[in-house]
Amino acid sequence: MPPVVTPMNYTQAELDAVAYNADGLVPAIVQEQGTGEVLMVGWMNREALERTLQSGRTWFWSRSRQEYWCKGETSGDRQYVRDARYDCDMDVLLFVVEQAGRGACHTGNRSCFFRTFGGGATPGPV
Amino acid sequence: MPPVVTPMNYTQAELDAVAYNADGLVPAIVQEQGTGEVLMVGWMNREALERTLQSGRTWFWSRSRQEYWCKGETSGDRQYVRDARYDCDMDVLLFVVEQAGRGACHTGNRSCFFRTFGGGATPGPV
Repeated sequence: MPPVVTPMNYTQAELDAVAYNADGLVPAIVQEQGTGEVLMVGWMNREALERTLQSGRTWFWSRSRQEYWCKGETSGDRQYVRDARYDCDMDVLLFVVEQAGRGACHTGNRSCFFRTFGGGATPGPV
Repeated sequence: MPPVVTPMNYTQAELDAVAYNADGLVPAIVQEQGTGEVLMVGWMNREALERTLQSGRTWFWSRSRQEYWCKGETSGDRQYVRDARYDCDMDVLLFVVEQAGRGACHTGNRSCFFRTFGGGATPGPV
């Protein structure tokens, strides 16, 4: 049985109060429910944020492709939002999710943060 | 007994390989060891990153004050780095820390992410 989709509560005032940067974007941390593992960071504009809260799935704005994308829509590595938070300055978002599929990283790793400083092998962007 | 300070291993090649933005900055997530709680996000330039890895304490670049700051230096709410990671694109950093003092947030909350969407009371930046 696939994970349950749960739309999140929000107000338009909250969407307006987010401190988007000069490009209209805000970083969104995605953390795995249960394990607490930090999976990835993506960028959202107001529309991507509202789509995320409405749909209960994570939506981002791709800065390189200049388009919206719903995480895992094609790969199946979907993220079902369980908690949606914002920080004291309202300039960073935090989504706790149930991660489906292989994980969050396009490299096949569960988390994008699979490398540590001093790890030696630093192939650069993959 | 105060927490042990542990400098982190790193290479200059790693510092160079980080994808700093147009302002020379990269977002740094700070996560609490043990609980896995996401405490805060700050911004680092190359120098702040190197200070963090060398000193085993978190150093950030304040965009508003245009100066370096070492977390908790005056408040005592210090962060002792236990793990230093970077993501697949090398444009986000993740530090797992032992949090001393009251917590990470200047509001007195342990985490800066103490509010949820739909929470109603949204006083804005505090």
